[in-house]
Amino acid sequence: MATAPAPNIAAVILAAGKGTRMKSDLHKVLHPIAGHPMLLHLAESVAALKPERTVVVTGAGREQVEAAVAPLGIVTALQAEQLGTGHAVAQAEAALAGFEGDVLVLYGDVPLVSSATMQAMVARLHAPDSPAVVVLGFRPADPAAYGRIIADEAGVIAKMVEYKDASEAERAINLCNSGLMAVRSADLFALLARVGNDNAAGEYYLPDVVMLAAADGRASAVIETSAAEVAGVNSRAELAGVELSWQQARRTQAMADGATLIAPETVWFAFDTVLGRDVVIEPNVVFGPGVSVADGVVIHAFSHIEGATIGAGAEVGPFARLRPGAVLGEHSKIGNFVEMKKAVLGVGAKANHLTYLGDAEVGPGVNIGAGTITCNYDGFFKYKTVIGAGAFIGSNSALVAPVTIGAGAIVGAGSVITGDVEADALALARGKQEARPGWGKRFRDAMMAKKAATKK
Amino acid sequence: MATAPAPNIAAVILAAGKGTRMKSDLHKVLHPIAGHPMLLHLAESVAALKPERTVVVTGAGREQVEAAVAPLGIVTALQAEQLGTGHAVAQAEAALAGFEGDVLVLYGDVPLVSSATMQAMVARLHAPDSPAVVVLGFRPADPAAYGRIIADEAGVIAKMVEYKDASEAERAINLCNSGLMAVRSADLFALLARVGNDNAAGEYYLPDVVMLAAADGRASAVIETSAAEVAGVNSRAELAGVELSWQQARRTQAMADGATLIAPETVWFAFDTVLGRDVVIEPNVVFGPGVSVADGVVIHAFSHIEGATIGAGAEVGPFARLRPGAVLGEHSKIGNFVEMKKAVLGVGAKANHLTYLGDAEVGPGVNIGAGTITCNYDGFFKYKTVIGAGAFIGSNSALVAPVTIGAGAIVGAGSVITGDVEADALALARGKQEARPGWGKRFRDAMMAKKAATKK
Amino acid sequence: MATAPAPNIAAVILAAGKGTRMKSDLHKVLHPIAGHPMLLHLAESVAALKPERTVVVTGAGREQVEAAVAPLGIVTALQAEQLGTGHAVAQAEAALAGFEGDVLVLYGDVPLVSSATMQAMVARLHAPDSPAVVVLGFRPADPAAYGRIIADEAGVIAKMVEYKDASEAERAINLCNSGLMAVRSADLFALLARVGNDNAAGEYYLPDVVMLAAADGRASAVIETSAAEVAGVNSRAELAGVELSWQQARRTQAMADGATLIAPETVWFAFDTVLGRDVVIEPNVVFGPGVSVADGVVIHAFSHIEGATIGAGAEVGPFARLRPGAVLGEHSKIGNFVEMKKAVLGVGAKANHLTYLGDAEVGPGVNIGAGTITCNYDGFFKYKTVIGAGAFIGSNSALVAPVTIGAGAIVGAGSVITGDVEADALALARGKQEARPGWGKRFRDAMMAKKAATKK
Repeated sequence: MATAPAPNIAAVILAAGKGTRMKSDLHKVLHPIAGHPMLLHLAESVAALKPERTVVVTGAGREQVEAAVAPLGIVTALQAEQLGTGHAVAQAEAALAGFEGDVLVLYGDVPLVSSATMQAMVARLHAPDSPAVVVLGFRPADPAAYGRIIADEAGVIAKMVEYKDASEAERAINLCNSGLMAVRSADLFALLARVGNDNAAGEYYLPDVVMLAAADGRASAVIETSAAEVAGVNSRAELAGVELSWQQARRTQAMADGATLIAPETVWFAFDTVLGRDVVIEPNVVFGPGVSVADGVVIHAFSHIEGATIGAGAEVGPFARLRPGAVLGEHSKIGNFVEMKKAVLGVGAKANHLTYLGDAEVGPGVNIGAGTITCNYDGFFKYKTVIGAGAFIGSNSALVAPVTIGAGAIVGAGSVITGDVEADALALARGKQEARPGWGKRFRDAMMAKKAATKK
Repeated sequence: MATAPAPNIAAVILAAGKGTRMKSDLHKVLHPIAGHPMLLHLAESVAALKPERTVVVTGAGREQVEAAVAPLGIVTALQAEQLGTGHAVAQAEAALAGFEGDVLVLYGDVPLVSSATMQAMVARLHAPDSPAVVVLGFRPADPAAYGRIIADEAGVIAKMVEYKDASEAERAINLCNSGLMAVRSADLFALLARVGNDNAAGEYYLPDVVMLAAADGRASAVIETSAAEVAGVNSRAELAGVELSWQQARRTQAMADGATLIAPETVWFAFDTVLGRDVVIEPNVVFGPGVSVADGVVIHAFSHIEGATIGAGAEVGPFARLRPGAVLGEHSKIGNFVEMKKAVLGVGAKANHLTYLGDAEVGPGVNIGAGTITCNYDGFFKYKTVIGAGAFIGSNSALVAPVTIGAGAIVGAGSVITGDVEADALALARGKQEARPGWGKRFRDAMMAKKAATKK
Repeated sequence: MATAPAPNIAAVILAAGKGTRMKSDLHKVLHPIAGHPMLLHLAESVAALKPERTVVVTGAGREQVEAAVAPLGIVTALQAEQLGTGHAVAQAEAALAGFEGDVLVLYGDVPLVSSATMQAMVARLHAPDSPAVVVLGFRPADPAAYGRIIADEAGVIAKMVEYKDASEAERAINLCNSGLMAVRSADLFALLARVGNDNAAGEYYLPDVVMLAAADGRASAVIETSAAEVAGVNSRAELAGVELSWQQARRTQAMADGATLIAPETVWFAFDTVLGRDVVIEPNVVFGPGVSVADGVVIHAFSHIEGATIGAGAEVGPFARLRPGAVLGEHSKIGNFVEMKKAVLGVGAKANHLTYLGDAEVGPGVNIGAGTITCNYDGFFKYKTVIGAGAFIGSNSALVAPVTIGAGAIVGAGSVITGDVEADALALARGKQEARPGWGKRFRDAMMAKKAATKK
């Protein structure tokens, strides 16, 4: 039997809710998880299915949402009034005009649903028993007031019932409705048109399509996933819960891939962190977006890393801060209280203590002494510091950019370098030392007398 | 029916225990929770009830305790010998002479009991059935060896029984006695006078008053609270447990109020931390006492903040240390490895890297370059640095206080500024750069030869 | 009855497994826990029993293992092919030739087994009923696919059964086989010689010795320990789990001994950390190996400490980094963004901000100003800085070693000190301050014009 062609897919993502409980000026679905707006996590999982169209249904704060998804070629549909989930999906009808295929109904505040689960929903829709609707169910530890799904072992749904309408026996069932759904486009809007709002809230409920299909003699089916995957975000506490859930999965993956996390619960990854093998990460490391870590790198405790590319065998921290544009060569070393920004550190080069490297190119084998500062900013523009291979920058130096230190040059400790230094030269720029014998004692005596007088 | 007048309240806080298991020279009830002695947490919850009197019963280490509570106008009573909880409360009789009203019996090492719970205890005492004693009960996950309370659904106590005297059936009951109690003053000392010490330990037990009242035909009642609220501290592990419990409640509150805590379990608040709305707190932030954070502030990872006032829209960290007297203007920025102490940073001013600002006034819009140090101390006195609006302090500068940098002035990188700089001027104070061509290579050759010789 | 002489003990530690799931170039048993290779944790627990011999059975990566244990006088035996645990133990026969006594069979990847448990296994072997084999059992929360032990109340084993061969009734028993064993040398190799490999995997299974002894009419016995103690490490996730388990036990011990850990779950100890009484450790502190902390020390948040000795009453951090050779005198203070390495800080001396002290001797009462750097390295050799008692080092100074600052001397802020300073003298080494009135304003105007031009 030949494989059926992959079905056309469209996604409708509901994001019209106000998110009042977030108490935020930022739209709920734009709050980040692992440094990335939750709506984009979901949109990227959808994109992996190569959908023909994706429609985000917006309401309050729609400008923020539109600005976030526009770069992805995702269109939006407005739900002007909040009349229920069925009504919200119906608003996508115009945006899906002409689309023929399967529609996934998703929620912008249920961001961790995976491509695999979405795929499984679509696949179930095309199973031999061809259900009218596929509902995504889950079994929470505490089913509480979720709507229940009564189904047989094959997942064919006998009944879906709101908690408040459920009998004791039905409440004892712990299979709950996540709200996510897959329906053929040909069915979806026809069924929605028949959904009424004859209920206490006066709302149009999406799950009603299941019972309407049943009334037509067409069964629906449920497939199950974990409660963590369909966790929703309605408050900052739930946001933190979803963040933790994402982080735990990422940490487990990092360890499975061959990284040592001494204290995994203290390492915070970004959505796009890339790690090599035999990487060691000590406790308390925070990754921002855009970090790539090659094999054999050691990241010591209390490091904060974003937008950085770290070469094989490099050593970072403790107390290192790598900012966007930091590029560490193989076996290079960034030590404590060192910040790098838009700076390239050559192979085997070192900046071990209390240093700021901004807008700099540091050659291989260079040693940057403790307390070195690249002075890259004049209040208006940024300037570059270039340090040649094998140069040695003495401690507590200030390199006033634009400036070039030649290969093999030495800068004396405590120098303020304002002009270029040629290769292999020594540059000094510091005051002459002078001494005032006995001055220290005289000062101390005077101050102690003053202090004594003050106390009277 | 008219509302009854609020009853007079007095509190007796027992704090005579030695706390041997703490293995500490500091009195047990003075160990801090969220940066504040646990006894003061409790005393402040009591104070919210506006009690007529509060008496702390002290024993070992009473000087420490007296010094801690004296500023609050709380008196102490000495329990010279440790003869049981009944005996301890009896020591407060003189201090309560003439007081007529309700007495709350509390414990200095049970610090998280809320004002609301205390109020509920008093209210129950004045319920229509007018119990002789109100006992605070709880249902621990593991009731272990706690004394059990046998009561009916209305909380009327049939029996209180020590674990060791309890039958199997009684042990199966999980309602336990916290030890906290509310009793009318007219009853308390009369009942206590009848408590005996005819038991294995030879001690006078406070809970006996319940059975003595019952013998007079007067019922007592129990009201319930959570086990977390009545958690006691007898060891440093229990201290850590109560700290965690306090922190978890505070984190939950912070999120409910509209702050994002990316990793709530890594944020440690002080007892008095104030947070605005849409504040974002990254992982690993520690608050000491006295911090106020306005709306829209972002606090990056690894920041340590005490005694600081942070204006709206300001950005802090990562790796920032704000010490007492740090005041950040709106939209100002304190970056990595920067310390502030008794320093005011103007609106929109920035100190982004490796800087120490102590005893300083920094005007609006000022840019403090990387590695800038205010030299505020001569070993005896502290001196002030004043920087005018819009000034630009070049990187790696030392500003030797007392010193004033005028508005719009520029300090050249690497300068040591010892005298005032007038507005709009440029100040430079650094050595002239000189070069020794080829010296670097000669030095390197000589050192490599020496190193080779050393290795032989 | 006279006490029997302590039995001779030998240990066979199996470490031949490849550890493929670790995805590491480092041998599995050499991955560290609390900064120490897991095999050495186990070997040191064995060493406490003063064994006559210890044999590590190696396979893949044996060179790494041999190099790690050779310094401890531990011999290795090679298991060239992976033919099962029984076969692995048999490889130790030659190394144990002539040994008469009790053999403990241990696993290099089950590192937390205590000396006390090992001792208990040997003691059980010598109990009056004299079992042929003593097996170490445990009761995991989820017994899963572990082999089950059917035993009576005295621990006498009726049957040991692999999970796949177990009946439903046997699977309901949750006493599982850890694989650890004690057997007399006279029995061990004789029994092993009879173990066959007639099973699906074609392997020689060590537990078979129990059933072979039973066939001879000799009973074996089980003693029990916690699941945590016999946790094995086959992946980085399990490594993290064992690390956490070790840390939790160590934190609990630290608190029981009289240290305050405000957030115990955020403090990471090394295997050899020594703590005094009334030590306070704030959240987020990481200890590397070789740290000793005296009484009354306060370690503030975000400190990273290795190889350091901290005197009584000293204060460390926040954001302190102490590296090997840091020695802090009593009541000294190392503050934020300060690094110490091979440096001694005298009684009451202070380095509070943004400082690097390397290869230094700092006398009592010295004050090191903010931003001070000891320039200890010229790219080839390290040199020493010596600072006499009571000296005052002005902020942002560079001390170019080798250099000596005499007692009571004062170094002016921002100086670069290249020559010795005599006692009680003042040393200055900085540029003269010069001013260019109005230059700041002219520069600003020019730059703003340039910026405006750039934007066009």
